[in-house]
Amino acid sequence: MSKDAFAATPAPPYYAVIFTSLRADADHAAYDAMASAMDALAARQPGYLGIESAREGIGITVSYWQSLEAIAAWKRNAEHQVAQRLGREKWYAGFRLRIAKVEREYGAG
Amino acid sequence: MSKDAFAATPAPPYYAVIFTSLRADADHAAYDAMASAMDALAARQPGYLGIESAREGIGITVSYWQSLEAIAAWKRNAEHQVAQRLGREKWYAGFRLRIAKVEREYGAG
Repeated sequence: MSKDAFAATPAPPYYAVIFTSLRADADHAAYDAMASAMDALAARQPGYLGIESAREGIGITVSYWQSLEAIAAWKRNAEHQVAQRLGREKWYAGFRLRIAKVEREYGAG
Repeated sequence: MSKDAFAATPAPPYYAVIFTSLRADADHAAYDAMASAMDALAARQPGYLGIESAREGIGITVSYWQSLEAIAAWKRNAEHQVAQRLGREKWYAGFRLRIAKVEREYGAG
């Protein structure tokens, strides 16, 4: 784990998708494989800026995007739609997805 | 861990503070005590809506607020300012803080 763990986002404004989830007790290996594949696929989408993710009971994944249009296109991606359906039907006991416009950013290190 | 892990946020718009951090290798017990105290103190501030948090290498804490004014007031809170200073000087190898306006929310479970 290095400081590369932080998404290298540009000066605001840009967008964040805050996805919080609770796993169901189902097929963890298949879930991990799909989650990794989705992270890699997201990184190849137009408008993708970066991702930060941690799971400790609750899972929190924040992905960053240039625009709402980029987020909408990623949501419509065919492989991603399969993953979304499996998530709802099988992998998650619950989730929240919030789309937010980042207005300010600062940090250190 | 129950579904109460999700912040019970209202219909958008509202605001999110996305705080991502990497811990320094310093005084973990004192850090944990201060982090818990800050979570409890935040929950008593005007305009606080909820919090979601996980650490797995990187730490991600998303707190939700009614307004930018509520976020600014929490940032100015005297006890919180002590914690912010200790965070910068001692506890974090690095951090990012992003303030974002939540425009859309959906979920299940």
